[in-house]
Amino acid sequence: MGSTCEINAAMSIWRRLSLFVLASSLCSCLCRAEDSAMENIVTEKKAEESHRQDSADLLVFILLLTLTILTIWLFKHRRFRFLHETGLAMIYGLLVGVVLRYAIHVPSDMNNVTLSCNVNASPATLLVNVSGKFYEYTLKGEISGSEVNDIQDNEMLRKVTFDPEVFFNILLPPIIFHAGYSLKRRHFFRNLGSILAYAFVGTVVSCFIIGLLMYGCVMLMKQIGHLGGDFFFTDCLFFGAIVSATDPVTVLAIFNELQVDADLYALLFGESVLNDAVAVVLSSSIVGYQPEGDNSHTFEAMAMLKSFGIFLGVFSGSFALGVATGVVTFTKLRDFPLLETALFFLMSWSTFLLAEACGFTGVVAVLFCGMTQAHYTFNNLSPESQDRTKQLFELLNFLAENFIFSYMGLTLFTFKNHVFNPIFIVGAFLAVFLGRAANIYPLSFLLNLGRKYKISSNFQHMMMFAGLRGAMTFALSIRDTATYARQMMFSTTLLVVFFTVWICGGGTTQMLSCQKIRVGVDTDQENFIGPDGVERRSTKQESVWFFRIWYNFDHNYLKPILTHSGPPLTATLPACCGPLARCLTSPQAYENEEQLKDSDSDLILNDGDITLAYGDITVSTDATGAHTSGTPVGGVAVNSDEALDRELAFGDHELVIRGTRLVLPMDDSEPPLPLDSRRHRHKNETMS
Amino acid sequence: MGSTCEINAAMSIWRRLSLFVLASSLCSCLCRAEDSAMENIVTEKKAEESHRQDSADLLVFILLLTLTILTIWLFKHRRFRFLHETGLAMIYGLLVGVVLRYAIHVPSDMNNVTLSCNVNASPATLLVNVSGKFYEYTLKGEISGSEVNDIQDNEMLRKVTFDPEVFFNILLPPIIFHAGYSLKRRHFFRNLGSILAYAFVGTVVSCFIIGLLMYGCVMLMKQIGHLGGDFFFTDCLFFGAIVSATDPVTVLAIFNELQVDADLYALLFGESVLNDAVAVVLSSSIVGYQPEGDNSHTFEAMAMLKSFGIFLGVFSGSFALGVATGVVTFTKLRDFPLLETALFFLMSWSTFLLAEACGFTGVVAVLFCGMTQAHYTFNNLSPESQDRTKQLFELLNFLAENFIFSYMGLTLFTFKNHVFNPIFIVGAFLAVFLGRAANIYPLSFLLNLGRKYKISSNFQHMMMFAGLRGAMTFALSIRDTATYARQMMFSTTLLVVFFTVWICGGGTTQMLSCQKIRVGVDTDQENFIGPDGVERRSTKQESVWFFRIWYNFDHNYLKPILTHSGPPLTATLPACCGPLARCLTSPQAYENEEQLKDSDSDLILNDGDITLAYGDITVSTDATGAHTSGTPVGGVAVNSDEALDRELAFGDHELVIRGTRLVLPMDDSEPPLPLDSRRHRHKNETMS
Repeated sequence: MGSTCEINAAMSIWRRLSLFVLASSLCSCLCRAEDSAMENIVTEKKAEESHRQDSADLLVFILLLTLTILTIWLFKHRRFRFLHETGLAMIYGLLVGVVLRYAIHVPSDMNNVTLSCNVNASPATLLVNVSGKFYEYTLKGEISGSEVNDIQDNEMLRKVTFDPEVFFNILLPPIIFHAGYSLKRRHFFRNLGSILAYAFVGTVVSCFIIGLLMYGCVMLMKQIGHLGGDFFFTDCLFFGAIVSATDPVTVLAIFNELQVDADLYALLFGESVLNDAVAVVLSSSIVGYQPEGDNSHTFEAMAMLKSFGIFLGVFSGSFALGVATGVVTFTKLRDFPLLETALFFLMSWSTFLLAEACGFTGVVAVLFCGMTQAHYTFNNLSPESQDRTKQLFELLNFLAENFIFSYMGLTLFTFKNHVFNPIFIVGAFLAVFLGRAANIYPLSFLLNLGRKYKISSNFQHMMMFAGLRGAMTFALSIRDTATYARQMMFSTTLLVVFFTVWICGGGTTQMLSCQKIRVGVDTDQENFIGPDGVERRSTKQESVWFFRIWYNFDHNYLKPILTHSGPPLTATLPACCGPLARCLTSPQAYENEEQLKDSDSDLILNDGDITLAYGDITVSTDATGAHTSGTPVGGVAVNSDEALDRELAFGDHELVIRGTRLVLPMDDSEPPLPLDSRRHRHKNETMS
Repeated sequence: MGSTCEINAAMSIWRRLSLFVLASSLCSCLCRAEDSAMENIVTEKKAEESHRQDSADLLVFILLLTLTILTIWLFKHRRFRFLHETGLAMIYGLLVGVVLRYAIHVPSDMNNVTLSCNVNASPATLLVNVSGKFYEYTLKGEISGSEVNDIQDNEMLRKVTFDPEVFFNILLPPIIFHAGYSLKRRHFFRNLGSILAYAFVGTVVSCFIIGLLMYGCVMLMKQIGHLGGDFFFTDCLFFGAIVSATDPVTVLAIFNELQVDADLYALLFGESVLNDAVAVVLSSSIVGYQPEGDNSHTFEAMAMLKSFGIFLGVFSGSFALGVATGVVTFTKLRDFPLLETALFFLMSWSTFLLAEACGFTGVVAVLFCGMTQAHYTFNNLSPESQDRTKQLFELLNFLAENFIFSYMGLTLFTFKNHVFNPIFIVGAFLAVFLGRAANIYPLSFLLNLGRKYKISSNFQHMMMFAGLRGAMTFALSIRDTATYARQMMFSTTLLVVFFTVWICGGGTTQMLSCQKIRVGVDTDQENFIGPDGVERRSTKQESVWFFRIWYNFDHNYLKPILTHSGPPLTATLPACCGPLARCLTSPQAYENEEQLKDSDSDLILNDGDITLAYGDITVSTDATGAHTSGTPVGGVAVNSDEALDRELAFGDHELVIRGTRLVLPMDDSEPPLPLDSRRHRHKNETMS
C-alpha cells in the first residue's frame, strides 16, 4: 500500500518530469573552471528547452478541451443527446493517447541518470554535491524496478502524466463544491431521509457486496493461477469503496434538459453528491485498517473498530468544519461585488485547506461548506455576487470535469502499468451491477414501507441504470498505483467508467422512454399526477422527526441570525428574549420588505404558486421586540408541522411567517386549508 | 547569470520544499525485509504530515488575502484613500514575514540529507538507489555553499518560498491580460501616438539612463571597496530594464474613483500596460547579450545587434501571436454562455502557452491577445458572456495582484540572501527618479511639438509622480537571484516598490489637488474645458497617418469580417465585390438592428452624446449586396478623415455609418456639422 508519491502533495502541473537531461555534460570532465561560463549557457539552453516542451505539453491538453467545447457546442446545437461532453472528452483523450503511444516516440538517447548512491534513506529533499556545486532535488516517488527501464524507454508518455494528487487537491474540490452549491434544496430536503439512506447505508452495502464478490473472484483467479501478485481482502474492500461513488453527471444533464421529474432528480443528485463523500472517507478508513502484529491482512476486531472510528471521526470532522466555515462566511460587503466574490472564493478554498491541515478530508468539508453556503451565505450576497459566484464555480466545475474525463481517456493508453485481467474485469462488471442492485432495490423497498408516496419501480430501475462512475472513482483509483492489486483495480476502474459513461449515459433517453418516465414536467405539476395517471404527491411525510425539528430550528433561529432573510428573530423568539432578539436581528430584516424574500428561491425550482395566499395574516413587529399579530401567528406557522408541510409545498417562499402583512392577488376566495386537496383539485380543474 | 532554477518551470505552489525528512530512517540499518511494512507506514505518516504542513502554509497565504479583503472593505467603506489594497497587502505580508522570521523557529534537528555522490552532472531527474529501491527525484535548483547551511537552519522560511517562475507563469498572465482586456479604447486610440512614444522610446531611454547611472554608482562602490562581488555593465542595464516597468495600479484606482481626466488616465494606463511588455522583452534581450570569446562582459557590436534582433523578434512574434489568436477566437456559441466563457478562457491561456512554446514571451502575447479580444471578440460574445469574462478576469486579476504584493511584503524578511548596500540603494532611488524624468519631460516636449492639444505641465508632473513600480518589476527581479549582483538588485527593487507604492500611491490625492488637476470630470466635458478654464479639446490631430489608415481599414473591413458589429461589408466594399461581401458578412449584420450597436461602448467611457444625430441618413441594403442610400453615405462616413474625427469624438458609437436609418431624439434642430464647435458651444451653454 505504501507509496511515497503522496509526499509530493500535488499541483505539479508543469513540474512533471523534465526528462530533457544533460547527457552531454555527463561526458565532460570534472569541474574545469574555464568551462563554467559555457556550462551555464548550456544549462540555460536546456532549461529553456524544457520549459518550452512543458508549455507545449500543457497546450495539448488545452487544445483538447477547446476541441471538446467546440464539438459539444455542435452537439447541443443539433440536440444530439447520446453523447455528453464528458463522454466526448474521453473519446478525444483516447485518440490523443493512441497518438502519443504509437505515433510519437521520443528517442531514448537523451537519457536520465541513475545514481546508485547506496544511501539508506529516501529523504524528501536531497542535496547532491556535483563536483563542488550543490543541487537540490525533491522526491517525486518510488519507482518499481520494471519502471526504471520504462523511464528510459519513452519519455513522451511520462511527460503527459500528472501527479495523481493533482486530481484530489486541484480538480475535484471545485467539482464537489459546485455540486454542494447547486443542490436544488426544496426537493432535496423533501427526500432527505431517502437520500441519506441511499448515500450512507446504500454505499456501505454496495462497498461490502462488491468487496465480497471481488474476493470470491480473486480466490478463483488464485486457484486457476491467473493472479500475478498479492490481492488481500482489504484490497477488495477498497475496490468496493472506490467504485461505489456514483457520478451521474451525464444522466442529470439530460434530466435537466428534458425536465424529468424533480423528485427523481433530487434522489439521484443528492445520492451521488453524498455518496462521493462516503466513498472517500470509507476508502481512507479501509486504507487505515492496520492490524497490529506481523500478519497485516487478517481480521482483527480492534483494527476494524479503529477504522470505523476513523470513518466517523473524519466524516463528522469534515462535516463540522465545512458547515462551520460555510456559516462563518458572513459577508457584509454588499456594495463591492468583487471583494465579496473574492472573499467567498477564498473562504471556500480555505475550508479545503483547513480540513486537509487538520487531517480531515478536504473534499468532504468542501461539499458541506458548499451546501451551507448555498443555504445561508447565498442569502447575504448581493445579487451581482450571487450571479458571479454561481458562474465562477460553474466554469471551474466545467473545466475541471472535462479535464478529468479527457485525462481518463488519455491515460488508458499512456499509463504504463496496466494490468488487464479478463476474469477480474468480468467479475468487476458483475459485482458493480449487483452492488448497485443491492443498494437500490432492498433500500427502496424498506424506504417505501415508511414513505407515504412510494418510489415507484420505474424510478428504481432508472436509479439502478443511472449508477454511472466518474471523476471521483477515477481520482480515488489513480491516487495509488504502486502495487499489483492497485494497478489491476485502476485498469478495471477505467473500463467501468468508460462503459457506464458511454453506454448508460448514452442510453438515458431510451431508458427514460422505456421506463415510461414523463419528461417535460412542469415543476409544479409533477407532484400531483404520476406517469401512470395515479396520484403521486411529493413525499412530505417521509421526513424523519429530527429533520422536522431541525427545519423549524433552522428556519426560526439560524436563518434569521445568519442571513438577512427569514422572519425577524423578534417574531420567533419568546417575548422574554426581546432584547437579545433585537440585538441579533439585522436591521435589514425590518427595514426592507423586499430583502425578506428568501433569495434561495432561484436556487430551487420556480414555483408559480405564489398567487395562493393564506388569507390576511398580519404581523407587526414593534420596536420593543415583542410581536403583536392580527391572527395568532405562532399557531399558524411557527413550530407547527402543518406550516412546515405548507412551506415545503411552497418551495421556501416563506410567505406565511414573514412577519409582514402579505396581501397577494388571489384567483379564488377559498380558505387556504386544507392545502393539498385544494391545490390538487385546482390543478385537476386547470388540466381538464 | 546561469541558474538552473529555470529548469523547474514553475507552478509548484504546493510542491515547495518538503523538508520534513526521514531523519529517523537514517539511523535504521540497511534493508531488512521484515522492516518493510513498518517502514511503509512510517513513510506514509511522514507523507501525510508533509501534506498537512503544506496545506497549512498555503492557508496562511489565503488568510492573508482574506484579511486584506476585509480591511480594504473597511477602507472603501470609510473612503480612506491613502492606502490602496496592494499597499495594504504588502503591510500584512511584512508583518507575517516578521513573525515567520523572528517568532517561529522550526527546530533544525529534523534535517535533510546531503549526499556527496561525486557525480559529474546535475540531471533534471535523478534516480536514487536506496538499498535496493529506486526513488525518483526532480531537480529544484542550484544552491550556493552558504545556503546549504541556511537550509539546515530555519526551514520555515524556505517553506513559504515559492518558485519564482510561479509569478511569471501563473500570476502575471491574468494581470496583464486583464490590463489589455480593460483598456479604455476610445481615449487610448486618441492618444496612441503619445502612448507608444512613452512606452517604447521612454522605456528604452529610462533603461539606459538608469543603467548608466547605476554603472557610475557601481564604479564608485568599487573604488571605495563597498562592492562584494561582480557587477557588470549588463547587470546595470538589466536593472534599468526591470525598474523601468511602471505599474500605477494604485494611482489608477484613485483616478477611477475620483473621475480624473480621461486623457491623463489613458496616457498613464496605456503607457504602463505597454511598457511592461517592453521591459520584459528588453530585459530578456539584455540577458541574451552574449559576446563571443572569453571576456564575456565587454562591448561587442555583433552581440548587441543580436540582442536588438532578439528584442525585435520576440516582441513582434509575441505581438503577432497575441493578435492572431485574439482574432481567431471567433465565437459563435452565443446560446451557451458557459461554453463561450470556457472557450474564451482557454484560448487566452493557450495564447500564453503557445508563445512560450515558440520561444516568445507569453506575457507580451497575452497582453496583445487581450487587447485584440476586447476590440473584436468581445463584440461577438453574448451579453452574458461579456459580463462573465469581464468578471472572471477581474477576479483573477484581483487575487493575483494582491497575492503578489503580499508575497512581496513577506519576502523582505523571509528571503535569506538580501544584499542591502546603502550606496547602491541611494543611487538606485536617484537613478529611478532621473530615469523617469528623462522619460516624461523631454518626450512630452517633443510630443507637444506635434500635438495640437498639448500635454500640460501639471499632467507631466502627475505622470512623473505616478511612475510606481509593482508586480512586473518584482517578478522580473525575483526570477533570478543566483549572483551577488542579482541579489543586490532584488533587495533594492523591493525597497523601490515599497517606497513608490506607499509614498507615491498614498500621496496621489494630495498630488492631484496640488497640481490642480480637476477631479469629478464628466467624461464628455473633460475634452472641452481645461483645469485652467482654457479650451483643451482632445488631441485628435496627434494621431499619425498610419493610425488613420489603420483605423479606416479596421472599421470598414476588419470589424465587419471579424465581428457582428460595424457596417455590413456590402456597404463598405466597392459594388464590384458584392458577392464576396455578402459571403463574408454575417447574417446578423442585416437581421438585427440592435446587434449592430457596437457593444464596445460599455468598455469605453459612457457617452451621453447619443442624443446628437446627423440628420436622416438612410441606407438600405438590398439582397444583391449593392447599397442604395438616401444621402451619399460614402461621402459622409466611409474613408473620410472627418468621419474618423467625428467617431473618435463620439466614442465608437458608430452611428454614422451603421447602414441603417437612425432617427434619434434631438434637443435642437441645428445642422449636425461642424460638430466640434457645436458640441463645444452646447456644453458652454449648459455650464453657464
